[in-house]
Amino acid sequence: MNNYKKISVAEEARVELHDQLNLTGAEISINTLPACASVPFVHSHKQNEEIYGILEGEGYAVIDGEKALLKAGDWLRISPSAKRQFFASDKTAIKYVCIQVKENSLEGYTMTDAVV
Amino acid sequence: MNNYKKISVAEEARVELHDQLNLTGAEISINTLPACASVPFVHSHKQNEEIYGILEGEGYAVIDGEKALLKAGDWLRISPSAKRQFFASDKTAIKYVCIQVKENSLEGYTMTDAVV
Repeated sequence: MNNYKKISVAEEARVELHDQLNLTGAEISINTLPACASVPFVHSHKQNEEIYGILEGEGYAVIDGEKALLKAGDWLRISPSAKRQFFASDKTAIKYVCIQVKENSLEGYTMTDAVV
Repeated sequence: MNNYKKISVAEEARVELHDQLNLTGAEISINTLPACASVPFVHSHKQNEEIYGILEGEGYAVIDGEKALLKAGDWLRISPSAKRQFFASDKTAIKYVCIQVKENSLEGYTMTDAVV
């Protein structure tokens, strides 16, 4: 078990993986907002790019004042400085993964980083 | 649209997000293996930590010779040097997200990187 760690994520409003999985290159959270709910604040980041993937349901984000409709299967990248807030739709919960990584930190990937 | 980019991911065997979303801190792929299928090779990484999240279905991974059963809701971190291969179960497809990030690249996160 030294080279990997596995957990099963329960159905909770927010689950943060960094400490549970000993992550060193990302923080990842699994989030569910019930219908009509929102993250209760607008935020941006100092260094971190965020990638959001919509896993279930529908909603929208407001990013620097622009409304982006969201549904399961959508993925988006948000620059660190952008002011963002996430909302479930009026009728449906939204479940999404949020991945924080340091902007410009990736060097090689896939074929240039893999050893097959 | 300068500060964010959004795409809708189709149902394909593998979708890679880095180039589509202009990611700079991660490569993210969404992968589906049909029942009885596997990734056709074992691989490890030079620099990158990988985080896998099982989105749908069941299967298993073999990591440094150890078999880890996987089902929807499971998340795992794999160290760069670990030799890994992913398999769907005999009866069910498995859909998973794979996140590549440079090991030890994350500095602050959440409360220490956010501006509210």
